[in-house]
Order: sequence, then C-alpha cells, then structure tokens
Amino acid sequence: MTDFQSWARHTQQRMEQVLDTLLPPADIAPQKLHEAMRYAVLGGGKRVRALLAHAAGELCGAPKEKVDIAASAVELIHAYSLVHDDMPCMDDDDLRRGKPSCHKQYDDATALLVGDALQTLAFQSLATPQLCTHANRQLEMLNLLAIASGSRGMAGGQAIDLASVGKELDQSELEYMHIHKTGALIRAAALLGAYCADDVDAERINAIDHYAQSIGLAFQVVDDILDAEADSETLGKTAGKDAESNKPTYVTILGIDRAKQLAQELLENALTPLASYGEDATRLHQLAQFITQRSF
Amino acid sequence: MTDFQSWARHTQQRMEQVLDTLLPPADIAPQKLHEAMRYAVLGGGKRVRALLAHAAGELCGAPKEKVDIAASAVELIHAYSLVHDDMPCMDDDDLRRGKPSCHKQYDDATALLVGDALQTLAFQSLATPQLCTHANRQLEMLNLLAIASGSRGMAGGQAIDLASVGKELDQSELEYMHIHKTGALIRAAALLGAYCADDVDAERINAIDHYAQSIGLAFQVVDDILDAEADSETLGKTAGKDAESNKPTYVTILGIDRAKQLAQELLENALTPLASYGEDATRLHQLAQFITQRSF
Repeated sequence: MTDFQSWARHTQQRMEQVLDTLLPPADIAPQKLHEAMRYAVLGGGKRVRALLAHAAGELCGAPKEKVDIAASAVELIHAYSLVHDDMPCMDDDDLRRGKPSCHKQYDDATALLVGDALQTLAFQSLATPQLCTHANRQLEMLNLLAIASGSRGMAGGQAIDLASVGKELDQSELEYMHIHKTGALIRAAALLGAYCADDVDAERINAIDHYAQSIGLAFQVVDDILDAEADSETLGKTAGKDAESNKPTYVTILGIDRAKQLAQELLENALTPLASYGEDATRLHQLAQFITQRSF
Repeated sequence: MTDFQSWARHTQQRMEQVLDTLLPPADIAPQKLHEAMRYAVLGGGKRVRALLAHAAGELCGAPKEKVDIAASAVELIHAYSLVHDDMPCMDDDDLRRGKPSCHKQYDDATALLVGDALQTLAFQSLATPQLCTHANRQLEMLNLLAIASGSRGMAGGQAIDLASVGKELDQSELEYMHIHKTGALIRAAALLGAYCADDVDAERINAIDHYAQSIGLAFQVVDDILDAEADSETLGKTAGKDAESNKPTYVTILGIDRAKQLAQELLENALTPLASYGEDATRLHQLAQFITQRSF
C-alpha cells in the first residue's frame, strides 16, 4: 500500500481530470459562464470530500471509476456553495484558494449563475446512467445528496450561520449550525463513496456514517483553529475573517486549547467504529489524522 | 371532458397542494429560509409548466399523481430561477407575481439561499422513489431536467441574456437565447409529464417534443408582446422593463404586428404534430391556444 501522501496526491489528480471532463469546455457557448465554472472548480482545493468518498469506497470495495463520479458530484456542490458564500450579500470574501473569488474575477451575476449551474451539474453527474449497479439505489443516492445540500442540510446551515452573526451561541448551537453547514455534505461524501460498491454491507455503511459525522465536526473545529492562527497567505483565503465579522467559532467559544482538545476527541470518536476492519480502513484512518492534524 | 378553464384551475389548485406538501413547513428550522422558500413558490403564478406536464401526461396516459411530482420539480426550478433573476446583480426587479420579489420581502442573502435550496428540492422531488415504474427511466428524467436547467439550458440562456444587454441581436440570436432561457425548461416540463406514463410511446414523445419547442418560443414572443403593451398592475411584474433596460425583445426586433403574426405561426407549428391524436391531445391544444392568446 502506498503512503498516504502519494495516495492523496494521486486521488486529487484523478479528481482534477474527472472534473475537467465533466465541466463543459470553455470554448462552448456560453463561453464566459463555462470559463467561470471551470475557474471556480479546477486548479485548487484539497478535495477533502472526494478523498473521503474514495477512502469510504475502499472500505466497501467500490470501483474507483464509480467513486470518481459520486465524489465529483459532491465536489461540485461544495464548489457552488463556496462561489455563493463568497458573494457580497453573503460573506463578501475576495480571496479563495489563493486566487480572487469568482465574483471578483468575473462579476456578481456571473458568480450567481456559476453557482446555480454547478449545483445542476452535480445532480446531473450523480444521475449518470449505470453509475450504480442498482438504479433504485442510485435514486436513493440522489436523495441523500439533495437532503445533505438543501434547506435542512448545507443551505440551511448557511442560513443559520447568517442568522448567528453578532449573536452569542453556546457550543451546542454552534455544533447544530456546523452539522448542517459542513457536516451534512461531508457525511454525504463518505456515504456516496460507500454506496458505489456493487454490494453494500449495512455494518460498514453504519461505521462510515459514524466516522463521517465525527470527522465533519472535527474538520470545522480545525478550520476555526486555523482561521484564528494562520495568516491569509498560507490559508489561501482571508484569515481571521470569522472573528472579525463577529461570527462565533469554536475558538471564540472554547478558547484555542480546548478547541484543540475537542478536535483530538472527535478524531478518536471517528476511529472507534473502524477498529474491526483492519487494513480495509487504512485510508479512512489516515484521512482522519490528516484532517485533524493539517496545518494549512 | 370539462372545459379548459375548469381543468386549468383544478390543476393549478392540485399543484398548489403538492408544492405546499413538498416544501418544508415554515415552523421547522431554519424558519426564515423555509418561510421565504414558501413565499417564493406558493400563492401565485400561472403554473404554465405544470399545466404543460399534465397536458402531455394526458396524451400519454400518465397517472396524475406521478405527473404532480414531475411537474412540481419543474415549478421549483422555475421558481428558483425567478428568485435569482430578480436579484439586484441580475435583473434587479422589485415586483413578482404582484408581490415584492423575494429579496425585497426578505434580503439578498436569503433570496440567494432560497434559490439554491429550491433547486436542490427540485432534484430531490424528481428522485422520489417509485415516481417512475422504471428506475432507469427516472434517472434519464433527472438527466433531462438537469440538462434543461444547467449551463447549456436555462442558466446558460440567462448568461446569454446578460451578455446581450445593450447589444443589437437579430431574430436568430434572440431565438437562440430564448430556446435556452425559457424554451429548455418548457420542453422539459412537457417531456417529464409524458415520461410519467407506465409505457412510453416514442411517437407521442416525439410529437410532444416538437409541440413543446414551438410553444416555448411562442410563450416568449407573447411575453414580449405583453411586456410592451401591458401595465405593471395587470402584468404582476414591472412592465416595459426589457425595453427600458435596452434588452432586445421580439417586439423591438420585429415590431408588434410581426411579433403577433410570429406567435400565430408558432401556434400552428405546435399543433401540427398533434393532429393524429384526436381527443387525447385536447388539453395540449387548449393549452397552446391559452398560451398564445392570453392577455395577462
């Protein structure tokens, strides 16, 4: 088995190619929209959600080519959410992945349409014929992604986030927000990767579900720690933005030391359900460690 | 067979109930988002796309309960596009269906999320288990809706529309824009209604496809005529907006008389492929006449 860094790099490169093929070429009309869609998706990002889908797929023996499609649907949803979140009426962020955010590089109207069209493309990808051996299960996968992204998932978390600006939240309210805003899509990424297997084992799905829920929260806690500690250049987006805009974060609520301890506890929670799967769970193990220990 | 007005009113009422059930209740968190989603979708609109789906479903013998679901997916896509189109960075329109548009009633960030979440809900609805007897055909229906809504359909048409402001377009360029901006979703509405039938007859699908393409263009030509002639109160949205913002319309390019003549020609084109289906095509006939002769 190759080391984690090589696997992650290889998987990121695969995803870049898959997304490059899925996205409409920039020389097809409407050119500006297609160019901007490609700008928003390609050439950046850690592809954490895609790595999760592939790692979960490995635990379940899913064919990589199928996981590629499911993972790209999740990455497209994630990319659309970033484009819309960065817009002036939302977080008003000028920097994303070390580059001007989509509405800065193009304009607000284009960014709005880019996000809209990327969401559509995500569902189109997941509806790819023969992605799944069982068409009924594929419909369930589409449902899963929709629930994770919609008003009771990611978009709902974003609404709760907006409503929380300037408010005092306690830890459980903050958790509720993040379970929706980022946790739901991270969970969907792992489950969709697993469902790409020809035969689905309910126990492994269950283990992945528990793992993904803990890792989703851990991811956000680490994000808050990085946002508090890093500078914009290493972060690739505007640092200290949340604290500055008076948004509650794990660091503002718990302090930096307790936040780091929480990340460690969530890592342990994530790994517990994988204990019995030995080498099949190696990538999920490594990925959990990567997510909680990353310093960028 | 009941008269057209009764059928249309009955179908509109059915759709209102189906959409009311599909939309998350306003008392479930995040309340403001859910309230705004309901505001944007319920209590207004002619539901032309839903009527088309039902009329096409009748030609193919599709169960009404299934067409309800497919039609609501299309209506949700349409509603999301109106919410986003009305935003300040797009058409900046304060009035929609006789009420303040979503971003005026709430705020820009909420309107952005409302549109996003309505699109997600559309795909979730169309992925409803057992909507279609054949899961594989249902996946094709999801693909059809995605292609009609995405960067090479509705969202793409919107991008072309934005790029055309202040430009001189000829009739074929204007047609290209509208085939994407409104035509693609109208065509999808009719086809999705037809695909809800247990058994699909390729010839009838073909006839519906031709019908819907002509009717989609006719719809836009009539819209331009109404926009040029009506006042805001009867129109339920800001009248004369297109001409004022220097957008090309069929009326500015062809003049009002030639535009009316074009609408009549498109009506005849739409009806030709239905000639052999007798009473099965009654609703499609009536709907085509309604669309081209409506005065509101």
